[in-house]
Amino acid sequence: MSEHSVVAPRFIEGARFIEGLALAVANFKGIYPPLPTFFDTREELDLAMYQQHISNLAGTGIAGYVVMGTNGESVHLTSDERLQVIEAAREAAGSDAQIIAGCGEQSTRATITNCWRAATAGANAALVLPPSYYKSLMDRRALVAHYQAVADSSPLPVVIYNMPASAAGLDIDAATICILAGHPNIIGVKDSAGDMAKLAQVTGQVPASFRVFAGSAGYLLPALSVGAVGAVAALANIFPRHVCRVQELFTAGRLEEARTLQAQIVAANTAVTTTYGVPGLKAALELTAGSDGRLRADCGYLRSPLQPLTEQERVNLLEILRRVLHTKER
Amino acid sequence: MSEHSVVAPRFIEGARFIEGLALAVANFKGIYPPLPTFFDTREELDLAMYQQHISNLAGTGIAGYVVMGTNGESVHLTSDERLQVIEAAREAAGSDAQIIAGCGEQSTRATITNCWRAATAGANAALVLPPSYYKSLMDRRALVAHYQAVADSSPLPVVIYNMPASAAGLDIDAATICILAGHPNIIGVKDSAGDMAKLAQVTGQVPASFRVFAGSAGYLLPALSVGAVGAVAALANIFPRHVCRVQELFTAGRLEEARTLQAQIVAANTAVTTTYGVPGLKAALELTAGSDGRLRADCGYLRSPLQPLTEQERVNLLEILRRVLHTKER
Amino acid sequence: MSEHSVVAPRFIEGARFIEGLALAVANFKGIYPPLPTFFDTREELDLAMYQQHISNLAGTGIAGYVVMGTNGESVHLTSDERLQVIEAAREAAGSDAQIIAGCGEQSTRATITNCWRAATAGANAALVLPPSYYKSLMDRRALVAHYQAVADSSPLPVVIYNMPASAAGLDIDAATICILAGHPNIIGVKDSAGDMAKLAQVTGQVPASFRVFAGSAGYLLPALSVGAVGAVAALANIFPRHVCRVQELFTAGRLEEARTLQAQIVAANTAVTTTYGVPGLKAALELTAGSDGRLRADCGYLRSPLQPLTEQERVNLLEILRRVLHTKER
Amino acid sequence: MSEHSVVAPRFIEGARFIEGLALAVANFKGIYPPLPTFFDTREELDLAMYQQHISNLAGTGIAGYVVMGTNGESVHLTSDERLQVIEAAREAAGSDAQIIAGCGEQSTRATITNCWRAATAGANAALVLPPSYYKSLMDRRALVAHYQAVADSSPLPVVIYNMPASAAGLDIDAATICILAGHPNIIGVKDSAGDMAKLAQVTGQVPASFRVFAGSAGYLLPALSVGAVGAVAALANIFPRHVCRVQELFTAGRLEEARTLQAQIVAANTAVTTTYGVPGLKAALELTAGSDGRLRADCGYLRSPLQPLTEQERVNLLEILRRVLHTKER
Repeated sequence: MSEHSVVAPRFIEGARFIEGLALAVANFKGIYPPLPTFFDTREELDLAMYQQHISNLAGTGIAGYVVMGTNGESVHLTSDERLQVIEAAREAAGSDAQIIAGCGEQSTRATITNCWRAATAGANAALVLPPSYYKSLMDRRALVAHYQAVADSSPLPVVIYNMPASAAGLDIDAATICILAGHPNIIGVKDSAGDMAKLAQVTGQVPASFRVFAGSAGYLLPALSVGAVGAVAALANIFPRHVCRVQELFTAGRLEEARTLQAQIVAANTAVTTTYGVPGLKAALELTAGSDGRLRADCGYLRSPLQPLTEQERVNLLEILRRVLHTKER
Repeated sequence: MSEHSVVAPRFIEGARFIEGLALAVANFKGIYPPLPTFFDTREELDLAMYQQHISNLAGTGIAGYVVMGTNGESVHLTSDERLQVIEAAREAAGSDAQIIAGCGEQSTRATITNCWRAATAGANAALVLPPSYYKSLMDRRALVAHYQAVADSSPLPVVIYNMPASAAGLDIDAATICILAGHPNIIGVKDSAGDMAKLAQVTGQVPASFRVFAGSAGYLLPALSVGAVGAVAALANIFPRHVCRVQELFTAGRLEEARTLQAQIVAANTAVTTTYGVPGLKAALELTAGSDGRLRADCGYLRSPLQPLTEQERVNLLEILRRVLHTKER
Repeated sequence: MSEHSVVAPRFIEGARFIEGLALAVANFKGIYPPLPTFFDTREELDLAMYQQHISNLAGTGIAGYVVMGTNGESVHLTSDERLQVIEAAREAAGSDAQIIAGCGEQSTRATITNCWRAATAGANAALVLPPSYYKSLMDRRALVAHYQAVADSSPLPVVIYNMPASAAGLDIDAATICILAGHPNIIGVKDSAGDMAKLAQVTGQVPASFRVFAGSAGYLLPALSVGAVGAVAALANIFPRHVCRVQELFTAGRLEEARTLQAQIVAANTAVTTTYGVPGLKAALELTAGSDGRLRADCGYLRSPLQPLTEQERVNLLEILRRVLHTKER
Repeated sequence: MSEHSVVAPRFIEGARFIEGLALAVANFKGIYPPLPTFFDTREELDLAMYQQHISNLAGTGIAGYVVMGTNGESVHLTSDERLQVIEAAREAAGSDAQIIAGCGEQSTRATITNCWRAATAGANAALVLPPSYYKSLMDRRALVAHYQAVADSSPLPVVIYNMPASAAGLDIDAATICILAGHPNIIGVKDSAGDMAKLAQVTGQVPASFRVFAGSAGYLLPALSVGAVGAVAALANIFPRHVCRVQELFTAGRLEEARTLQAQIVAANTAVTTTYGVPGLKAALELTAGSDGRLRADCGYLRSPLQPLTEQERVNLLEILRRVLHTKER
């Protein structure tokens, strides 16, 4: 399929989704690990490893999968590779699994193209990072026009992906999110800015059908306390049961236990997100490999220019992971 | 008293406080409004207005008062004026009230001097903003040495005041706070960075006697969910009952009500902190004046270079405040 | 040509360039306008307009053209469109013209692929923006490895493109540039950070064959004073003779005249770069259209999400441009 | 003199200066070292060392002295100490020397008070850093009002001190500087932002009697090329002759030599400013002590919380300094 053969029709109310494809909002809650994409020693896709990881995560309590996000090194893949990865995810996860695919591009038209491609490959929803190359020009007017145009033409429901750290510092504000929440094909936001006042402001104003997700397990419990319904959490690749358990305890009103567990996982979360990023996440998968249905110990290859952790960094990381491994939730 | 007459003896374990002065950690929790300092038309101190405001706040459920903080325009006062203001606060609040005084200065020695002065004037604890003029040099080594030296010599227990917006962006990290929590004369932190992962990390590691406070009502409920015990909240100058009620509901396990109230106050909170700052806080006091034991409508004078809100800004602010005034908690 | 058919052999000393293709370092100096890419009302490429603009610029004193840079909305084009644009540039500029093509991508391998494609399409050198999606991980080690790998395998000589504003704030430091200057296939840097101390440090340490360019006309004269040999300057799309004249006057030792002219163009430069960006550059081309071999007045269409200037912004911009138009250099 | 006894009359045109005190604009050009303040092992003022340093700098070609600036640790001194230091500077420098004193405070009124005190102690001009504690509120309206009020009432001519690194990132823009340049008692700006486009814009618009100074030796030559008339340069404390020589060569039209010398000093400049700051400057004075009329090798004591360089940092610094020491200008 060439880049030009995708036709992006205007969004049509009432018949807007490819039949049976779109994620049902009723089920859009809970914990979604953003899957890393695996490579071999030559930096080529290792789809077998990818599918193994998906199988390992099934049954741990997670609600679905995010593919082609920041942790998936989407920006390091070609268009064709992205399709292969989404298809592999769908094959491994089964037809009922929720699969949300990163679809953001710098131009509005390429973002729409990506949404169609992702739909074709089997995704249920599109996670759309804002364009930020021309960050200083991305005011509310530009962002609203962009997201509305994408939502108008996307066959998949759109989830706003607010992540300043991956968008040159661009932080979509509460008012803009609330405007976009009025579009029938924009169903939620994954917010990685960690600003709870903003989340409270958003959840207080949007309809219940618009879902707010924390963008990290580091502030899952606080986000839940102000009305978030789940998280897209890198840590859930490593400790899915722990992360899901925080939400279960919260829902059950067992706040003190939730707080204790939240505190136990936060250092590990910081390590595989802020501190060491994707290389840290992959190293963590390597360091916890070999038992309990986990991955092989050589799963951590990255695409350049990402560099693997140094030996000292791996030692530090293992120490941090061990503290979580020794808690009861595993 | 000259600036040089203050003797700052080493901290002595077991007899470290001026008798009866130090804030009892057992009571160190709840909501503390950081008081604005009032001025007349000539920018001179209006201590009568100040004492009236303190009286108005008494009995609303607040735990105590923060004086000489960012909202108190401490940086606009002379050393002598700061003493006058603290003394006026003590006089109005009564001998049993908790009064926490901002004492941070750029040099370690001046910070210690300030702690002694504040003690003399009747404060119960010292809130210490980190030095940030030489921000790039304020690494962990420098910050730990600074706070430990201050805590060693201060007659008042020290509360760390982490507020990047008022400290040139300097953000004291979790590890540094945890190190400082080990000092017997450092009893807590007011954290205005709004990073819940960090608060969770801190509360998970420090002893229970070290108290963590949110630095704003905007994320009070999320902060409580990860173990904070209260807040220093500018909004509590205007809506003390609302802010206190969020914590009461949380403590009572009535999370959904707490969440609703949190969402109701967050826009007003943003207005009087991030958006309009101290001029916004004072304008809000003016706009809600005239009834219910509130202040006079001319309470909003600022010291230059701070400028009053424009008329349009006042209109915007009033609209935001009205939404809170119409909720049931008042 | 598929994305996968590009073979990227290791750089071979002495036979490293596609014959006759590589830019001769001896001629690598002077003023290079970074060309905007033109679109029609449907946001499709308008290559005729593009070639007209190139013809208009010929003979104004410029040294060559930069294509597929930030001003060229490279990030809004598909891979195929980029090739079309480079080919159109070569066709319009003639076989002797210097054409430098933006080739940076997030992955090392895609950057190399781009260099080969650009070579095939007729470019003489590759301008490589650093990967910045994972900005926090792009330390010196990662950047040196990336650029060296690209330079090893690129058929075109590589020019480092340091532009924090387009790279999430990532600023390649002097030491890293000096290390990279040691690679035989890295021939220069276009630095848009505007840090003259850094440029002085670089020019003082690199061999004369490594060329330093200002990334804007706004600090052309200061950059020349510390050893830069020219500029990639958006303003040269509008006022090529003025920008070239600054360098001519400097070279002739007529510093005072250079300074006067530099001061005359700086406000217009700020308007079409920092203040209004690419929409401003295109609006400026529209506002100066219609005479003197200039473009048509409908040349300013952008690809979404970029938005055209408001009417008020156009009025402001015209006022600024008029001050330059009335100087003698036109 | 109490803090309250200073009367700050409105500026009176034609008789505005304390007789014979104000710096004559005609002489306001050249290189001004911002003097460090020296301390003994107990962190008390060492005024003898201070006066020795001033004597050492006399006759090296510098135009005058800046006291109570960032390098003078002004924020670490009490009000009384600041007066002592200015008086000591005047005594050592003699009655004809130009002495510019840092006078910026957070409030407008305290800044005016400081200008009067500095005048009383013998300063010729006031260098005024903008208030930045409430940085987000310091828009153009607030800054213009502040500086105009200070200039109206200051007995000393005012020099704007734009230094984002010491003002929480606040950067006074070109338009604001140009507005302020219209005030008869504002005679210049020391700009440490290093933005040459801005300097070009300012020098192109202000009257010749308004003087623009680079805030660092790191970009002295580029700043001169766009119309600056000198620099306030920390490096001039260590290598006054080198820094002055750059300007002499520029003035003589010997650009190539100027460029070579500029490149030779830039690494040392970076070390004692950006990299190591005031501790680096003092360490550099220690490391170059002992000959040639230089200071004693124990001159580097700082006030806490500033920390001395580590041994490794001193080794690195010495290596950098040696490269300058071996150039011919010493």
